[in-house]
Amino acid sequence: MRGFAHRQTVAAALAWLDAELKALGPERLPLAEAAGRVLALPIVSAVDVPGFDRATMDGYAVVASSTEGAGAYSRLPLSVVGDSMPGRPYEGVLSAGQAVRVMTGAPLPHGADAVLPAEFVDAEADGRTIAALEAMSPGKNVGRTGEDIMRGTRLLEPGRVLRPQDVGVISSIGLAHVEVVRKPRVRLVVTGNELLEAGASPRGFHITDANGPMLSALVARDGGVVDFRGIVRDDAGAIADALLGDADVVLVSGGSSVGVEDLAPGLVAQHGELAVHGIAMRPSSPTGLGRIGNRLVFLLPGNPVSSLCAYDFFAGRAIRALGGRAAEWPYRKVRGRLTRKISSPIGRLDYARVTVSADTVEPLAVAGASLLSSTTRADGFVIVGDDSEGFAAGTDVDVWLYA
Amino acid sequence: MRGFAHRQTVAAALAWLDAELKALGPERLPLAEAAGRVLALPIVSAVDVPGFDRATMDGYAVVASSTEGAGAYSRLPLSVVGDSMPGRPYEGVLSAGQAVRVMTGAPLPHGADAVLPAEFVDAEADGRTIAALEAMSPGKNVGRTGEDIMRGTRLLEPGRVLRPQDVGVISSIGLAHVEVVRKPRVRLVVTGNELLEAGASPRGFHITDANGPMLSALVARDGGVVDFRGIVRDDAGAIADALLGDADVVLVSGGSSVGVEDLAPGLVAQHGELAVHGIAMRPSSPTGLGRIGNRLVFLLPGNPVSSLCAYDFFAGRAIRALGGRAAEWPYRKVRGRLTRKISSPIGRLDYARVTVSADTVEPLAVAGASLLSSTTRADGFVIVGDDSEGFAAGTDVDVWLYA
Repeated sequence: MRGFAHRQTVAAALAWLDAELKALGPERLPLAEAAGRVLALPIVSAVDVPGFDRATMDGYAVVASSTEGAGAYSRLPLSVVGDSMPGRPYEGVLSAGQAVRVMTGAPLPHGADAVLPAEFVDAEADGRTIAALEAMSPGKNVGRTGEDIMRGTRLLEPGRVLRPQDVGVISSIGLAHVEVVRKPRVRLVVTGNELLEAGASPRGFHITDANGPMLSALVARDGGVVDFRGIVRDDAGAIADALLGDADVVLVSGGSSVGVEDLAPGLVAQHGELAVHGIAMRPSSPTGLGRIGNRLVFLLPGNPVSSLCAYDFFAGRAIRALGGRAAEWPYRKVRGRLTRKISSPIGRLDYARVTVSADTVEPLAVAGASLLSSTTRADGFVIVGDDSEGFAAGTDVDVWLYA
Repeated sequence: MRGFAHRQTVAAALAWLDAELKALGPERLPLAEAAGRVLALPIVSAVDVPGFDRATMDGYAVVASSTEGAGAYSRLPLSVVGDSMPGRPYEGVLSAGQAVRVMTGAPLPHGADAVLPAEFVDAEADGRTIAALEAMSPGKNVGRTGEDIMRGTRLLEPGRVLRPQDVGVISSIGLAHVEVVRKPRVRLVVTGNELLEAGASPRGFHITDANGPMLSALVARDGGVVDFRGIVRDDAGAIADALLGDADVVLVSGGSSVGVEDLAPGLVAQHGELAVHGIAMRPSSPTGLGRIGNRLVFLLPGNPVSSLCAYDFFAGRAIRALGGRAAEWPYRKVRGRLTRKISSPIGRLDYARVTVSADTVEPLAVAGASLLSSTTRADGFVIVGDDSEGFAAGTDVDVWLYA
């Protein structure tokens, strides 16, 4: 019950963690499920897009030389010999003096080398003759084969988070599946005999689990697949079973400190490696990091604010990196002026919840590690590094925004 | 085939649209599905959290007055009469001179009013007597009933996008369900006889649909539920059926202009109201906005860049707003210096794709509306308003980032 003999720095804990992180292998997904996922292999086009020369304007496909000298006062007649519509080309070969009515996107007829836009044409009522009112150079208003994508082009690189338009481009080259980085499977082990399952009303001396639902949402946000089977009793056998299950990452919530009731740290050390235990930060000091086989294990304090903070510093970083994403926080950073000082001893990193309005940053007055509502009242947090005694009122500070 | 007689401004189109937008009604969801959704009704706590006074440190619950005068050179003996663990309280009543061993989070025994932390205690080997080495004031290291959340507190307001910690807080007050804004149902109608379904290899004069997969991903990103049943032939009956289906929003891709093959605009006017048709912007000029019954209808050009741009300006805005979200673009904005000029005529808004490196912004050289790959090569876009002729090289401009 006397606390940690020694606490590692946040930097040392992150150094251990980062050395353990590398993106998981690929999985093959139908394209319709690929947006937002991380590409595992490059996308190379096996086709030209478009696969044919096409009109980029509504108008008439022509032999450009037939329009030479055309103008508003020098109308050149052309005879209309057919239509070319998207997906339904003109089958013949165009000669000088002829024109084929085309819609945007329609295949350019053989023999034609330009499109005369509709606004430079006077069409006779019979639809069989037009007058060109403007000269076209060869290639004008024609989209060439492969102008969007040339066969053999490397379009997208591994590591890219696929955007909606990327999915469109991949579809346009005829791919039905893509290889993306597999999502980390995250086993969530919430311990605590005092806890009731989410959905139960708190009663007597029991409290309803907040960390399970919160951590589940955090893992999903960061691209992990959550495996959460409900509260695990404070029992070494039950916790060991959960620690040894099938997962890439195990998050244990609660019982992470050094008391006799804190079972998880000993179990991690027994079955694997407890690399970090006790970190010089507030909240979240009783955090542990380790590994059992291929599983990265995170021991998160039961206090919900500590749980959130330890998740964000360590577990979330790992889940994002395993999934091929940027390890950095997914929070937006803004800058603002502190209304009151934030104090923190040298040698400890502090995570201070704040509200932000216009350009001012107000530290929350009451912010114990057990008060989860402080993280819903807060707009974000300010980090005071372990080499700093904090910030005086009036200092400009960086705020990481929750929303 | 002569184009639009008159094009409305983007501002006028948005003014019509915004007047049509209001968040949809609520739906009831299990809490586990609520993160990231938009709260429809306020969350008010019916309970105190915690529901009992509790220890906020590991140590000994005491009557504070029993420690008066205690110090390192004035050790005050206390007799240990039991334990209080989380979820398992001490059942008796504490008297002066007594102590109960407590863990953080454990219920404070009746009679106790402070917790003496373990580091201010010398415990005898028998575990039945301790010496207090420090005086505690009443309330010290005690978390009071309701200190996190008081019964009756209004915790979260409608319109809030639920954060992971919000879900935790809602769980802690015993709610199993929440009322969130219903997701808009978005029917996606992709037309074009030249199109092959996604997954098919482009062949002959056919191209593989890019807009269906892209628009599906955009709708999902913006919180809509996509209903996409594959390509619809360019046939008035088939398009009318799709327009009149069950949906909050209908997106029609392709056939949005004024040619004889452009069927959708006439059908919207026939069955409802075609409020806007033809907009002074590039790309996406042949865009239409309207309404059929309760359905908002968006006619998006078939060219994929135009489709993306028209979606982002109009349809995405509507889907976000119907779902209770901020109507603004979900893109991050950065500022950078143009390496080359961007020109645009007065009276037309331009959407210019650019790449960004460090602080410089480079307009893409080739960027036709049909070249979807330009939106994957680009990092984002610059908007030139219709009151501007563009930006000279060296100007600092806002860039909206796709990623």
